Amino acid sequence: MTDAKVKSMALIVQKFGGTSVSHLGPIRRVARRVQTELNAGNEVAVVVSAMAGVTDQLVGWVRDIAPAGSDAEYDTVVSSGEQVTSGLVALALGRLGIKSRSWLGWQLPVRTSGVHARARILNIKTDEINAFIASGGVPVVAGFQGIAPDGRVTTIGRGGSDTLAVALAAALKADRCDLYSDVTGVFTADPWIVNNARKLDKITCEEMLELSSLGAKVLDPRSVRLALRHRMPIQVLSSFADLPGTLIEGTIITDVWGMPLEDDQNQNVVTGIAYSRDDAKITIVQVPDQPGVAADILAPLSEAGINIDMIVQNVSHDGDATDLTFTVPRGDAEKATHVLRELKGKLDYRILLSDTNVAKISVIGIGMQSHAGVAQTMFTALAKNDINIQVISTSEIKISVLIGEEHTERAVRALHEAYKLDV
Amino acid sequence: MTDAKVKSMALIVQKFGGTSVSHLGPIRRVARRVQTELNAGNEVAVVVSAMAGVTDQLVGWVRDIAPAGSDAEYDTVVSSGEQVTSGLVALALGRLGIKSRSWLGWQLPVRTSGVHARARILNIKTDEINAFIASGGVPVVAGFQGIAPDGRVTTIGRGGSDTLAVALAAALKADRCDLYSDVTGVFTADPWIVNNARKLDKITCEEMLELSSLGAKVLDPRSVRLALRHRMPIQVLSSFADLPGTLIEGTIITDVWGMPLEDDQNQNVVTGIAYSRDDAKITIVQVPDQPGVAADILAPLSEAGINIDMIVQNVSHDGDATDLTFTVPRGDAEKATHVLRELKGKLDYRILLSDTNVAKISVIGIGMQSHAGVAQTMFTALAKNDINIQVISTSEIKISVLIGEEHTERAVRALHEAYKLDV
Repeated sequence: MTDAKVKSMALIVQKFGGTSVSHLGPIRRVARRVQTELNAGNEVAVVVSAMAGVTDQLVGWVRDIAPAGSDAEYDTVVSSGEQVTSGLVALALGRLGIKSRSWLGWQLPVRTSGVHARARILNIKTDEINAFIASGGVPVVAGFQGIAPDGRVTTIGRGGSDTLAVALAAALKADRCDLYSDVTGVFTADPWIVNNARKLDKITCEEMLELSSLGAKVLDPRSVRLALRHRMPIQVLSSFADLPGTLIEGTIITDVWGMPLEDDQNQNVVTGIAYSRDDAKITIVQVPDQPGVAADILAPLSEAGINIDMIVQNVSHDGDATDLTFTVPRGDAEKATHVLRELKGKLDYRILLSDTNVAKISVIGIGMQSHAGVAQTMFTALAKNDINIQVISTSEIKISVLIGEEHTERAVRALHEAYKLDV
Repeated sequence: MTDAKVKSMALIVQKFGGTSVSHLGPIRRVARRVQTELNAGNEVAVVVSAMAGVTDQLVGWVRDIAPAGSDAEYDTVVSSGEQVTSGLVALALGRLGIKSRSWLGWQLPVRTSGVHARARILNIKTDEINAFIASGGVPVVAGFQGIAPDGRVTTIGRGGSDTLAVALAAALKADRCDLYSDVTGVFTADPWIVNNARKLDKITCEEMLELSSLGAKVLDPRSVRLALRHRMPIQVLSSFADLPGTLIEGTIITDVWGMPLEDDQNQNVVTGIAYSRDDAKITIVQVPDQPGVAADILAPLSEAGINIDMIVQNVSHDGDATDLTFTVPRGDAEKATHVLRELKGKLDYRILLSDTNVAKISVIGIGMQSHAGVAQTMFTALAKNDINIQVISTSEIKISVLIGEEHTERAVRALHEAYKLDV
């Protein structure tokens, strides 16, 4: 080995999703992957999901036996999946001569809130596994689970193993968190829609956050948010192909003006296209255009536990009334219209419109702000394809539009081409 | 309800085996059974096994992934089965409007030794579930598992859920421990061999201990031993038939001479017939007939971890040499002969014989000692059927003989008839 090749030792958290541990063959592959990382001179801590399909089966049983039963029992049953795989992966590592042991959520412990089935991680005690790693061992932590203040088992919701992996990486002050699943990385658009969608070598945490919040299913937004907060680099990669994945950078390198620097590999202003069919559009026609009216409308929705996403208030036409449009999760559309009808007397609007036949299309890019014409390119591309834009909403690093749901695929393809994301 | 029907409240531990919780239908049936007991005015604590087949599957995975892997990981994986059923049964009870929650081994905790895969229960903390029962709740305890002094999950070996149920009943000072499985009770002989084998209404703990040690698979001997020590009555019954089972009495009522009293229902001196095909017979021909020679032979076997059961030393024929015969578990026969061959120089015997083609047939009865002729009936019945007795061994409440394995069924049937066990 030449000096140039000598790397300093890094601590890497490797998280393996359900398909990576679906049966014994893949579990042996997981063990060899850990071995490869150790052979490269690094230290490793592992987080595992349940075998693919097992969590669904357990959830099905719980729902069948008691549709509105205790969430604490739900957690007791459902967390068993990760318990099985943590033990099996530790055994597979042992078989390769690697010192290893499993830790369940309550053993570390991973302390969470007491809200069962969707608990929040409060903190992770790492003394034991730190010592274990220092002694040359590879800890295998059961994902998805923790322990409530009252000592009962909790689960941290779907996608919770990713979040736990990132939280563990942060607690261990790891150098990177590698998330292995059945996707090979993050793409410029959904490869099922855009044939020539390109795998990104890297993407910033902020962009990934927008992408995952806006419908890219690769990562749970909570885990990206956590990575962003702790500046923890994440790598998304496949456990079935020995290919580099996508690095989600924890740190953005900026120029002296605070603007992000682009490197040679990533010349594009727009990084990717996301879409979501999970929204409904609600429009309140002709509400009085006076201060506080938006709050009057949105507060009761918020109190009813309904998340409001895009909000657009058009410029007033006649000076004393305006239209307010916003989106809510499609499953909450009925509840939202119900809440607003109840307010009719108080709010004095003319018509309430609800439309579930919409799709939200977003273009995302950290360098977007520094380039004129990004929005123009989007609007032109859609217009050329006769796709009507219903609502527009922008942020620092994304532009989202609402269109008719039937145009989803055409819009994603048109934008992918317009921004030249395939090259 | 008349006064005569008023019963005082009892605390009953109900343990449900694998077939009783094999899927959601049986689990709902378990919940209704608990409800029946509550409706009868009793308090209930539940212990559950894993779904039938699940433990075997988990054990299979562990053995496949690492045949000689860590027993601590084995326990982590395998204990998940009872975790699932404890949650599901608690949910099913909740569905019926019964206050219920699950407790895992580490939550109570069930403290065990640190010997993984075959841990011994040290003590069970019952504060939490006592309070829960007092508040009208039904605790559901995951069977088979506990926690080691170092905080890792342990399992207490096959049949461990029965043992845990009896230990919990003792710790709770329960009135009875009901063990539900797919058998309807304890029979006078194996019903698969003897057509007219009769279900026993009751049997003493001592008899049951001999029966289960000698091959009746209904109950694990450890759980019977524990019941005996704590004088805890056990009831063996089926969760699929609404029939009374067999009561294994915790207390033997004796007369003033200390001899057990027979009641009207149980006139037979012999209670049941057991058989076992799990032994091998080893004979050492012509060892010096001098003090200490048996110990010289048996000590190295014991050191090698081999259990020795029946031991018979024949009367010396010629005054200076004798034959020693004993049985060992069939799986240890080769190891035992290997150990003994190694000792050839030191022990100075003539021939070493090993025979795995044997069966041990036993007749058991607590009243046996007070009746002459029990052994005579046995030997006559076997002789009449041309079955040669190779070795005889007796204890206070049983007589065992070793015969050729091919005679097993005939011997059991002949003895069942000879002792008139079908009436």
